[in-house]
Amino acid sequence: MKLYNAPAPAPNPRRVRIFLAEKGASLPMQDINIMGGELKKPEHLARDPLGQVPTLELDDGTFLSETVAICRYLESLYPDPPLFGTTPLETARIDMMTRRVEFQMGTPTGMFWVHAHPITAAFIKQHKDFGESNRANFDRAAGWLDRELSTRSHVVGDAFTIADISLLTVVDFANWIGLNLPEGLTNLRAWHARVSERPSAKA
Amino acid sequence: MKLYNAPAPAPNPRRVRIFLAEKGASLPMQDINIMGGELKKPEHLARDPLGQVPTLELDDGTFLSETVAICRYLESLYPDPPLFGTTPLETARIDMMTRRVEFQMGTPTGMFWVHAHPITAAFIKQHKDFGESNRANFDRAAGWLDRELSTRSHVVGDAFTIADISLLTVVDFANWIGLNLPEGLTNLRAWHARVSERPSAKA
Repeated sequence: MKLYNAPAPAPNPRRVRIFLAEKGASLPMQDINIMGGELKKPEHLARDPLGQVPTLELDDGTFLSETVAICRYLESLYPDPPLFGTTPLETARIDMMTRRVEFQMGTPTGMFWVHAHPITAAFIKQHKDFGESNRANFDRAAGWLDRELSTRSHVVGDAFTIADISLLTVVDFANWIGLNLPEGLTNLRAWHARVSERPSAKA
Repeated sequence: MKLYNAPAPAPNPRRVRIFLAEKGASLPMQDINIMGGELKKPEHLARDPLGQVPTLELDDGTFLSETVAICRYLESLYPDPPLFGTTPLETARIDMMTRRVEFQMGTPTGMFWVHAHPITAAFIKQHKDFGESNRANFDRAAGWLDRELSTRSHVVGDAFTIADISLLTVVDFANWIGLNLPEGLTNLRAWHARVSERPSAKA
């Protein structure tokens, strides 16, 4: 297997790297130069017709895309420690919160990046007012997560899971593009400090 | 168990209803009146702090949200026929395509609905130019799916899965709000006719 990767600040490849680090596993990696346009070159489109990273090349030469799909497959190869739960209900709760992190926090972050950030302005027709309006959605999602984290140490219960990896990478990317966590939110900030101290956060 | 549901045209509750119909299973259901504002009333917020449907109430009185998380849990209770695959790689491919349907086709559909449709204009500050710009993203995603479906009968391989349910419900909802499939795309249209003929499509 081989992972097509992109370095920081790209959040999705980092999700897979943290996932592997938590498992104590490693894979051969090849970096794709996003700003250099390599995602949309024929060589990479042959791996993924949508031209995204991460992409996992399997030993039979086929490819698998989408961060969570890749991680779910890697979980089957490296089951310990479990990051997708061990019972159907745990798995469902982790799936639920991973999706909510993506839809509630990841979508506004992505829309702000595409429609309001100066870096992407060079590549796309932006809708700036719409882009800026995503700050409010981001803040609202952060407030919701702060309330969720008032009763537990991690995004789902008290164990570190793929839902924590997903939230960590989106919060750090959002911060990098100028979407900062609102004032207060002591539970979310304490969670962020806690997961950032894990050695895997450097992956 | 009990499912908090909403009738057509809401696409996400329909995903769970089709899923159950494919399993030959049924659950007690309670409709939430979305246009009547019931999603954000305290009674429903106690079930789901984000105020969405579908929501599954478990026998212990706890709740599970997010369509795919609910379906994945139901798969563990009603394993036949399998709609999430039976091997880790099948499951990963189905997960990948479900996510791609959601992100590539569901997101532009949702953004068009929120920012360009007259019904939502009454409830939200719209960014109409941005909303309309999602027609191009929807069309591009439809073109990509048409190419994917040139080599197989269903979204992932030749078996009907949760990825087909996800695509059917988004295409039908998109059509209802005025986002129609572009001309041509004979593979995608043939697929749509094929899955619409299944008895579960009426659920």
